Amino acid sequence: MATIKDVSKLAGVSVATVSRYLNKNGYVSKEAGETIAEVIEKLNYRPNNIARSLAGMKTATIGLMVPDILNPFFPELARAIEDAANDYGYTVMLCNTDNDSAKEQKYIDTLLHKQVDGIIISSYGIKPEHLSSLQKQSIPVILIDNVFSSDSVVSLTVENERGGELAVEHLLERGCSKIAHICGPLSITSSRERTAGFENASRGTDWFTPSLIGYSDFTVHGGYTAMLELLSIHPDLDGIFASNDLMAAGALKALQESGKNVPRDVKVIGFDGIGLEMMTPELSTIAQPISELGKTAMDSLMGLIRKESDILTDQVFPVTLIAKQSTMTN
Amino acid sequence: MATIKDVSKLAGVSVATVSRYLNKNGYVSKEAGETIAEVIEKLNYRPNNIARSLAGMKTATIGLMVPDILNPFFPELARAIEDAANDYGYTVMLCNTDNDSAKEQKYIDTLLHKQVDGIIISSYGIKPEHLSSLQKQSIPVILIDNVFSSDSVVSLTVENERGGELAVEHLLERGCSKIAHICGPLSITSSRERTAGFENASRGTDWFTPSLIGYSDFTVHGGYTAMLELLSIHPDLDGIFASNDLMAAGALKALQESGKNVPRDVKVIGFDGIGLEMMTPELSTIAQPISELGKTAMDSLMGLIRKESDILTDQVFPVTLIAKQSTMTN
Repeated sequence: MATIKDVSKLAGVSVATVSRYLNKNGYVSKEAGETIAEVIEKLNYRPNNIARSLAGMKTATIGLMVPDILNPFFPELARAIEDAANDYGYTVMLCNTDNDSAKEQKYIDTLLHKQVDGIIISSYGIKPEHLSSLQKQSIPVILIDNVFSSDSVVSLTVENERGGELAVEHLLERGCSKIAHICGPLSITSSRERTAGFENASRGTDWFTPSLIGYSDFTVHGGYTAMLELLSIHPDLDGIFASNDLMAAGALKALQESGKNVPRDVKVIGFDGIGLEMMTPELSTIAQPISELGKTAMDSLMGLIRKESDILTDQVFPVTLIAKQSTMTN
Repeated sequence: MATIKDVSKLAGVSVATVSRYLNKNGYVSKEAGETIAEVIEKLNYRPNNIARSLAGMKTATIGLMVPDILNPFFPELARAIEDAANDYGYTVMLCNTDNDSAKEQKYIDTLLHKQVDGIIISSYGIKPEHLSSLQKQSIPVILIDNVFSSDSVVSLTVENERGGELAVEHLLERGCSKIAHICGPLSITSSRERTAGFENASRGTDWFTPSLIGYSDFTVHGGYTAMLELLSIHPDLDGIFASNDLMAAGALKALQESGKNVPRDVKVIGFDGIGLEMMTPELSTIAQPISELGKTAMDSLMGLIRKESDILTDQVFPVTLIAKQSTMTN
């Protein structure tokens, strides 16, 4: 079997250059790169990653922890992260945690055992103390949609509270005069922030009352049942802001089954921007920049892995109103 | 740092027993397992997986290649595989291939470099020759939804053709008298089989004509435009069988926008069983046993990795009709 030395010799470059080429880390001239690629193919050289890992402690692998890949927000995020990782020559280990603290802890242990170079966590049960074992071993961590105020972990979040305000402002502009809200799990920071945004924009209006808030769980079915309850208490409501798109879709279904026309009788807006294009009418939403979040998470993680960036800066991404049929005026 | 010998000594069992316990491979008595677990925690022992890999050539990692995790069929499959892998102490590397042959080949190389213990492929661009490098290195492969008739690779598929027949039979039973079909990409075997099922059940009826088949691409938007075209040629059609649920959802949207009532005017059935519960009316479907497929894929792969099963047996799973609102009779 060919070795890295064989490649270096035949390509007429140093072993260090071949290594930089293989690791996609550091400068290699275009010409040298092409020669190395040819030689690698000619010799059918396969770098032994396990041995390379032992030497450099790099596995070119990261862990990605999500609550549940079945919630369509997470495939979009996972896809963006995997695409970016692929560009770096990295692969992604997928872990579904169900937001279960014990499962999260177990995955962190597993990922440590597998000596991943870094971890991206978009799972909500995680507590700062879970990360201590990672920090002891200097494994970089990026948190998405979660913040540990006191910790040296990079967090990427979006303007959840502002998004909640935007949703209500949009419904008011479109003529709504009694707006209800379906909120997500109160254990999740981003969910609480969206509801705070709803309250900021609603409190002080003449129509606001706390019973306009329905409590739910970020699922289609949860949005459906919360909507039916809200309708039974407030049959005259004419606007709905749901804290995610899945609940908005469930609310739309409940409204249609209750004989309400959307958007004529009730206007509906969700949050996330997961593009449920199959819905009729199509759903307005406060969109997160999901692809950008995923790509930035991977870029930031690589910066930490390669020790190019030491300064940990949390980033808050803007959200965007996408107005579709479900909030159209007649 | 504690070693496996320290654990063995303190637990009063052999190193081999600790190893079996750690690898979840082979018999360890319940009592010994509990003692080992306690000692591991007490000593804060962390097996060095990279070193262990070098010794035993096992990384406890598998690769999963899917076309695109954004198509909701694949998160369901990935979740089932990841859950089963987790039970074996295995982690899953996720690869999105876009059914692109070059990308698939590149991922196979990457997964080889990372010395995965096996690969599950549910991606359609793959050709038998792509697998030769895996077979040379005796890396077990399970194919989902794809068959290489001439190859020694285990394939798990479903009764696609029978499913297509079932869909038409169901629509006929529900009173349809002119049934159109939206078929998926002809490059994909399972897609062709579903269309063959449609043809088996339709050919020879007095209403069948080839222009009742619309050609599409397994996406919501593709189903939507195919439906509009079919409606313009056959405004009197009263049944639609779409080869997957996403296209059925797009067809439903197109029908509703064209002023057709589903199920009164036109009945719609899809294929996959991905549970698009947000649709109104809810969609009937020919369901694949997605979770069972995923779990069986992982179980079979483990059998090959552990060399417990040498006999390669392809498996064909039955499909199930799930009748919902979209094919209800009035």
